[in-house]
Amino acid sequence: MSESRMSPDNPSRPVSVSDVDSWHETVDVLIVGYGAAGACAAIEAAEAGADTLVLERASGGGGTTALAGGVVYLGGGTRVQKACGFDDSPVEMLRYLEASTPNPDPEKFRLYAEGSVMHFDWLVSQGVPFKDSLHEERVIQPANDDCLFWSGNEKSWPYREIAVPAPRGHKVQGEGDAGSVLFARLDEAAKRAGVRVRCDSRVLKLVLDEGGAVVGLIAHQDGEDRAFRARGGVLLCAGGFAMNEAMLQRHLSRLVGRVTPIGNPYDDGAGLRLGMSARGAGIHLNEYHITVPFYPPESLTFGILVNGQGQRFIAEDAYHGRIGEAASQQLMGTVYLIVDEPIFGRPIIEGFEIAAVEQSVDGLERALSLPEGSLQKTVDLFNHYAEMGEDPVLHKQPAWLRPLKEAPFAAFDCSFGKAPYMAFSLGGLWTKPTGEVLTEDGEAIEGLFAAGRSCCGVSRSAEGYVSGTSIGDATFFGRLAGRTAAARRTKVDR
Amino acid sequence: MSESRMSPDNPSRPVSVSDVDSWHETVDVLIVGYGAAGACAAIEAAEAGADTLVLERASGGGGTTALAGGVVYLGGGTRVQKACGFDDSPVEMLRYLEASTPNPDPEKFRLYAEGSVMHFDWLVSQGVPFKDSLHEERVIQPANDDCLFWSGNEKSWPYREIAVPAPRGHKVQGEGDAGSVLFARLDEAAKRAGVRVRCDSRVLKLVLDEGGAVVGLIAHQDGEDRAFRARGGVLLCAGGFAMNEAMLQRHLSRLVGRVTPIGNPYDDGAGLRLGMSARGAGIHLNEYHITVPFYPPESLTFGILVNGQGQRFIAEDAYHGRIGEAASQQLMGTVYLIVDEPIFGRPIIEGFEIAAVEQSVDGLERALSLPEGSLQKTVDLFNHYAEMGEDPVLHKQPAWLRPLKEAPFAAFDCSFGKAPYMAFSLGGLWTKPTGEVLTEDGEAIEGLFAAGRSCCGVSRSAEGYVSGTSIGDATFFGRLAGRTAAARRTKVDR
Repeated sequence: MSESRMSPDNPSRPVSVSDVDSWHETVDVLIVGYGAAGACAAIEAAEAGADTLVLERASGGGGTTALAGGVVYLGGGTRVQKACGFDDSPVEMLRYLEASTPNPDPEKFRLYAEGSVMHFDWLVSQGVPFKDSLHEERVIQPANDDCLFWSGNEKSWPYREIAVPAPRGHKVQGEGDAGSVLFARLDEAAKRAGVRVRCDSRVLKLVLDEGGAVVGLIAHQDGEDRAFRARGGVLLCAGGFAMNEAMLQRHLSRLVGRVTPIGNPYDDGAGLRLGMSARGAGIHLNEYHITVPFYPPESLTFGILVNGQGQRFIAEDAYHGRIGEAASQQLMGTVYLIVDEPIFGRPIIEGFEIAAVEQSVDGLERALSLPEGSLQKTVDLFNHYAEMGEDPVLHKQPAWLRPLKEAPFAAFDCSFGKAPYMAFSLGGLWTKPTGEVLTEDGEAIEGLFAAGRSCCGVSRSAEGYVSGTSIGDATFFGRLAGRTAAARRTKVDR
Repeated sequence: MSESRMSPDNPSRPVSVSDVDSWHETVDVLIVGYGAAGACAAIEAAEAGADTLVLERASGGGGTTALAGGVVYLGGGTRVQKACGFDDSPVEMLRYLEASTPNPDPEKFRLYAEGSVMHFDWLVSQGVPFKDSLHEERVIQPANDDCLFWSGNEKSWPYREIAVPAPRGHKVQGEGDAGSVLFARLDEAAKRAGVRVRCDSRVLKLVLDEGGAVVGLIAHQDGEDRAFRARGGVLLCAGGFAMNEAMLQRHLSRLVGRVTPIGNPYDDGAGLRLGMSARGAGIHLNEYHITVPFYPPESLTFGILVNGQGQRFIAEDAYHGRIGEAASQQLMGTVYLIVDEPIFGRPIIEGFEIAAVEQSVDGLERALSLPEGSLQKTVDLFNHYAEMGEDPVLHKQPAWLRPLKEAPFAAFDCSFGKAPYMAFSLGGLWTKPTGEVLTEDGEAIEGLFAAGRSCCGVSRSAEGYVSGTSIGDATFFGRLAGRTAAARRTKVDR
């Protein structure tokens, strides 16, 4: 390929196969990106007998997974759930996912819930360690090597009334962040399966034939642009677009300047844009995960979150992402966490300023410039019911209810735009559960597949996001896409 | 063209120019869709000297505009604004638009505000009538032939503090819905300008050359599929996707089953899908306009809207679309409008059920199963301040403040999923203000333009939408796109 044909960052423009002078290499399955999705896809493709090559832009694999905590959302009765005494089922898991997501993908959800136990076992068979232990504290993720924890809204209203709650966050065994442990095991498994991985290989373009099918790609490697042909297909596993400022501005402008994007530097939407070059449709590009991690310490859950009207707006025992979304939607973004003396503690995440400390709720109300009487009325009502162990207003669990009555009273500023909020993109290519990329008309694009954050998976809304669905989706549907791409090679061969 | 190449509804798959046997016709500018955007684009293209052909799928023109009220959002000091004594300016108009829109397009907003007065004059010069009269009542749109009215949130908090308020809804002169009057005048102007319009012509596909440029289209006409070539370009003005159930389910699933879609039967997203066949990027496909038109009678504005927590959540003097969005986001969608005897009236839109009538607020609270004490506290606080003509909680204008204290008290059920909500899509192709359609990488696609709801225009969020921006955007940027497409023909000719 001549360098001149390749503009530096325009993956949404494809190359015609007639413009390819020669193929540098021909394989069965080409995988773009070597994070959790790419690794799982590669393992399955290779084990299905496909000659599988992964091209990774960075100098090493891992993607965002290797930077993450290593939580996998799994349920339906995994080994760890059983060992910890939880009686989960695929039906309850599916009920929870569907109830908590305003824009579900019914087929992906069903497969994910039904296949969850087998997927857990598969991860274990690849060497991924999970400890048979429950972490009971309310945390963002266990800091130690515990596995199972409540990583979503399962016990929060209204979900606890819709689906039998069970903890489904499975953290890979390891102190602190364990995403690197997960990826290391997947990497080893991939190598064992015969997968070839080439790092420092940036994919620039897809190559399309006359009918619009994807037949290969152009990658920049060893200082030159090389054409790679794929018999089975190209599988995009190149992450989301949290690190692409222009795309954030275009699709998620309300977050810009107010959140810290979470991701790796190459989460620049290249997967999505490559897919769009072959007419793949992007869906839910306006969706995101957002969090305002004011806990731990878990004692802060006893506090109440109020907006600029001095009103509560969400049960404080909800998942931090669901709280983050609700908080970010309050008028002018104003949100305070109100606590009293016995439950006071500093959020372990830095950046939550104390907006006021006063000897009375009334004083706090004035110090925060809330409408006179508003916070007082809210606290009175909350306390009245909390004394009885009830919260008819927002249905916080009784275990987190106690009246706020011991001075001093404090307010942490949790306002959107001031407090620490983190976010990443959830939108991506529209795919079938098999990974086949679809056009806006629902036509599957020949030879093109996607998995992980390059497509829109089971985590697809700020309201419904729970920890572990990113890696859960990436590994689960990465595998499926790898198998589909490998199978297509056989069909094409015949 | 052979019929077999054309699947019945797959516009997102293009046709290669090499597959076109012969052109049925070659013109300068081909316009897909004859609503307000298409008509304005056609007028400008024809007046610039371009041989302009409009293909309309229906048996007559008009699109959604001809079914609408005929409100155009214009400001900056139009003839009508001046005649009615309002001192508006482009700066204040721009301030308002930017402040009220979470995802603004700065360049489109600026051009729209700066060019608004000239656009008003242009519409008048095309024969569109506007009466120099102000409609003072709070209405969805004037029922009589009045022109100017408050069609947005200009006087609502916080916007009134950011931009000097002015009414900018300009209803075309005519009793009742006047969109048909607007379109009739544009249609006449287009014919005068030499535009040719062919109805009963469904555009099936775009035709692309080897480099991906749009060079024509395939339309079904007179019982056969015909290829039309465009020297200057193809301009997509084919409406939104409010009537495409699959697309609503995919992009706007939270609305499905809960709203009545607004549009014409051919608002099926064909414009967007045709654009995507040439790699045009769809943006803000998750955005929509939603309304819960509980007023008029305007006296209901004195009431308070409360959610299932018995809390107010938005100033009741806000635009009905802003209220609709906020209402639809309340927990479980529960919303009631609380009124007392003096302000009681039946919403003129049918379907708002009376949920309860009681002799006390306390009784109403119980009848609505609101948490005990919640509504009472809200009404007490509201009344306390309303007596003083203040609303420090949500900043409703003093003119709409009076205590709710005269029995009986009533609650209208405004809940999302129960009360009448209407909605339509706001997302569409990403375009420059000139109408050039862009890929996700910001590359302008040669020969492809879009305007009206087929692209994402100045109305682009549920929160920021105001009446008149749909037709305002369609006519304003339709004109610009028509000029751009016509100019390109000249360039290509040389």
